[in-house]
Amino acid sequence: MTDAWNKLVERLEELTDLYGIAGLVEWDQAVLMPSKGGASRARASATIGGIMHARLTDPAVGDLLGELEADDSLDDVQTRSVELLRREYDRETKVPAKLVRELTETTNFAYQAWTEAKPASDFAAIEPHLKKVVELKKEQADAIGYEGERYDALLDLYEPGMTSVEVETMFEELVEGLRPMVDTVLDARAPRPEFLSGNYEVDRQERFSQWLTRHIGFDADAGRLDTSPHPFTIMVGQGDIRQTTRYNESDLPSSIYATLHETGHALYDQGFPERWHDLPVGSYASLGMHESQSRMWENQVGRSRDFASFMLRELKKLFETELGSVTPDEFFEGVNYPERSMIRVEADELTYNLHIVMRFELELALFRDELEVADLPEAWNVKMEQHLGIRPGNDGEGVLQDMHWAGGMQGYFPTYSLGTIYSAALFDKANRDLGGLEGEFGKGETSRLLDWLRTNIHSKGHMLDAKDLATKVLGEQPSAQPLLDYLKGKYSDIYSITF
Amino acid sequence: MTDAWNKLVERLEELTDLYGIAGLVEWDQAVLMPSKGGASRARASATIGGIMHARLTDPAVGDLLGELEADDSLDDVQTRSVELLRREYDRETKVPAKLVRELTETTNFAYQAWTEAKPASDFAAIEPHLKKVVELKKEQADAIGYEGERYDALLDLYEPGMTSVEVETMFEELVEGLRPMVDTVLDARAPRPEFLSGNYEVDRQERFSQWLTRHIGFDADAGRLDTSPHPFTIMVGQGDIRQTTRYNESDLPSSIYATLHETGHALYDQGFPERWHDLPVGSYASLGMHESQSRMWENQVGRSRDFASFMLRELKKLFETELGSVTPDEFFEGVNYPERSMIRVEADELTYNLHIVMRFELELALFRDELEVADLPEAWNVKMEQHLGIRPGNDGEGVLQDMHWAGGMQGYFPTYSLGTIYSAALFDKANRDLGGLEGEFGKGETSRLLDWLRTNIHSKGHMLDAKDLATKVLGEQPSAQPLLDYLKGKYSDIYSITF
Repeated sequence: MTDAWNKLVERLEELTDLYGIAGLVEWDQAVLMPSKGGASRARASATIGGIMHARLTDPAVGDLLGELEADDSLDDVQTRSVELLRREYDRETKVPAKLVRELTETTNFAYQAWTEAKPASDFAAIEPHLKKVVELKKEQADAIGYEGERYDALLDLYEPGMTSVEVETMFEELVEGLRPMVDTVLDARAPRPEFLSGNYEVDRQERFSQWLTRHIGFDADAGRLDTSPHPFTIMVGQGDIRQTTRYNESDLPSSIYATLHETGHALYDQGFPERWHDLPVGSYASLGMHESQSRMWENQVGRSRDFASFMLRELKKLFETELGSVTPDEFFEGVNYPERSMIRVEADELTYNLHIVMRFELELALFRDELEVADLPEAWNVKMEQHLGIRPGNDGEGVLQDMHWAGGMQGYFPTYSLGTIYSAALFDKANRDLGGLEGEFGKGETSRLLDWLRTNIHSKGHMLDAKDLATKVLGEQPSAQPLLDYLKGKYSDIYSITF
Repeated sequence: MTDAWNKLVERLEELTDLYGIAGLVEWDQAVLMPSKGGASRARASATIGGIMHARLTDPAVGDLLGELEADDSLDDVQTRSVELLRREYDRETKVPAKLVRELTETTNFAYQAWTEAKPASDFAAIEPHLKKVVELKKEQADAIGYEGERYDALLDLYEPGMTSVEVETMFEELVEGLRPMVDTVLDARAPRPEFLSGNYEVDRQERFSQWLTRHIGFDADAGRLDTSPHPFTIMVGQGDIRQTTRYNESDLPSSIYATLHETGHALYDQGFPERWHDLPVGSYASLGMHESQSRMWENQVGRSRDFASFMLRELKKLFETELGSVTPDEFFEGVNYPERSMIRVEADELTYNLHIVMRFELELALFRDELEVADLPEAWNVKMEQHLGIRPGNDGEGVLQDMHWAGGMQGYFPTYSLGTIYSAALFDKANRDLGGLEGEFGKGETSRLLDWLRTNIHSKGHMLDAKDLATKVLGEQPSAQPLLDYLKGKYSDIYSITF
């Protein structure tokens, strides 16, 4: 039956190529496409997307999968690859073409409406669009199918193998620990360090980011770091992983932590086994696991006392005037400065997950038919008060702030917090396995951590779903406890709090 | 029959999108792809090429063409579009898939062998590859078919509608005028101006190129100017024309004239009617016509006394130390400095076409079965002595210098000189139509010329083949005479020669 396998591999190679080309098309659009190229680029993206869909759902792929599923001579990698492709093939073929088209059109219109509704703080303008999106997402979930509940099908698009109830349980534990912690920390908080606002020449910020990403292990011969308004990381091909960051003259930490975050993603992408490049197993275990890598380099490494002090020493070489008098304590405190804020993407490490949990709760209520789209704004404001103790002044800084819902990305939000939970749990395990990591961070040495991640996470690709991979590495089911412990440790260190 | 037309337009839109995507893939590879991305990029390029070929040669396209060819209600643009697509469809379907594969493989191997044979000056190493390429190109020509002779079929790939005999006649006239002129000019030549070698900071060269391309009309919101080892221009999408140039610290004219040359190509690409973007008529008339646009901005504009003096004034603002004492006369003389040289890509305006003509003569002899591949090196050296009066010291600076033959691009070379011939003839006509162009060049004003080109050439797209378009615009068949007159005028001006 190697014949069927070889034929499947040919198909997979073509799909990998198309996937990389679509990645390049998207990267170029965000990073350097001239403004007047927008309309033709939108159509070209749709064309390449259509071709990918047609090639993936070609009945010949289904036939090959059937043949290989009946073949008991396949090895583990082959078996898992067939299993993963089957999931994708079924998902893409089960949803009727008409629904796919409707979803694309509706989310395009909804997204367009959102770009105008957000600045105008006008929920009514987007409500009918959002209603239709939710209806169609329900239809999509039903077409895909699920064992437990509807939302599971959507979650599965981003976090395969994870159920709504499992997420709910983990997030409840997280909130229970987090809410009192936020109160305690904010009570003990010192004034905002002054260096957080300043004037930091962009060219030098860029030189620092280019140095930093290489310093912690990004292979710049096998990728690039560029600039775009919204930082992201994308696979263009084997040996070609593109990450972006952004520079704000008045906000130095913003570029540093965006770069560390994206480098975390990029290191994961650069760590998949080369021989699996064209196989479904040679990719990430889930978006949550991807996010765990970015969060770990951004937070557990980048916002640690030791690594922050190492970075400060290096930064002073470039920003002598601006940072000359800043102490390691001040810098550490500054890059961890906690605040109650309205906007998720500006939230700090302490409060961020509360923003996520409330979005998850609202999505879940929508898909459990316990909440109507029309009632979202009020439900949002109530949740904000409940979780963060503040109430948005208008919907623009409230329910309209993110593009995800208009974009039809229901089920995506929880992966942000799952990633944060995984990152703390995995870092805790690495530190116990290896010992003394943070001490090395003070000298800017992070290679033992990277090796551990390469061995335990990156090299495993998608042989296991994220939850199973985490369980195997941790020796127990992942939970929010390590994240809570980590945050307690950090803030008791900064503000001498006893929890 | 609008139904068939609409269906064809849908196909054409998809092909245009794929063509643009393939352009982006190529552009990115040359401009900024990280080195380790090469292998996967090569495969991705082949994949997108294969998909384009499959979509173009889909029998449904042939059916639509047949239906539309029988439809007498089509307008001129539709009729011409059907005619152009038919040419391409026939060419792509007539050549057997086996031969296409063999050609791709053979030229890949030959190109690889060439990259090693050239520095080693080892013709024997590439001879068997080249033999096979020529055999396959003969098969390809026979499969495509021709009216006159075999070489016509290859020429037609790049210069549709032009025959070998027509090119031969034009080139004979060119050589007859050019060879004595070269002798006369080189006898009268003054010493090489010193500013031609110097130290010109690359950042400032780049600032100049970015300014220059916009100054003469390149819309930088609808394209980009970047850097690559071999300058080129490529269409990525409507409103997205990418050109590249190169910078050499010790050679200022090199970047300036590469930029002017590529801007000429880019202005042509930016000048096709928007409404024709997805139709075969909305593209260039031939590679020769494309080259005429680049040559005109590089030579008739950029190397004119008046525009050179305008550029010198602007350059002095950036290179005060380096160019402060250079006079307009010296600068004009320097950027037109003629030499007998071995290498085509380094040749000046006066001698360049002799390099081309000898390649054309050798190609023609090969495809008329009057020359064997084994005899190419000696034939090359004889031609060099005959046309340029110098003999290569080895094959590396002789017959092995260009990649075209290993790459299977037989039939391409003549378009370089056809372009030069067109450029002089068209510029002469524009100058007669408009009057006083060169005077305006002294003030850096070139917009009347661009408008004339937009009206007479760019906006016509591929409604006519290049030769017919040139004949219509000129009011007579294009010939080498205007080019000869132009060169005589220039060099009698520089060195006070009476021809």
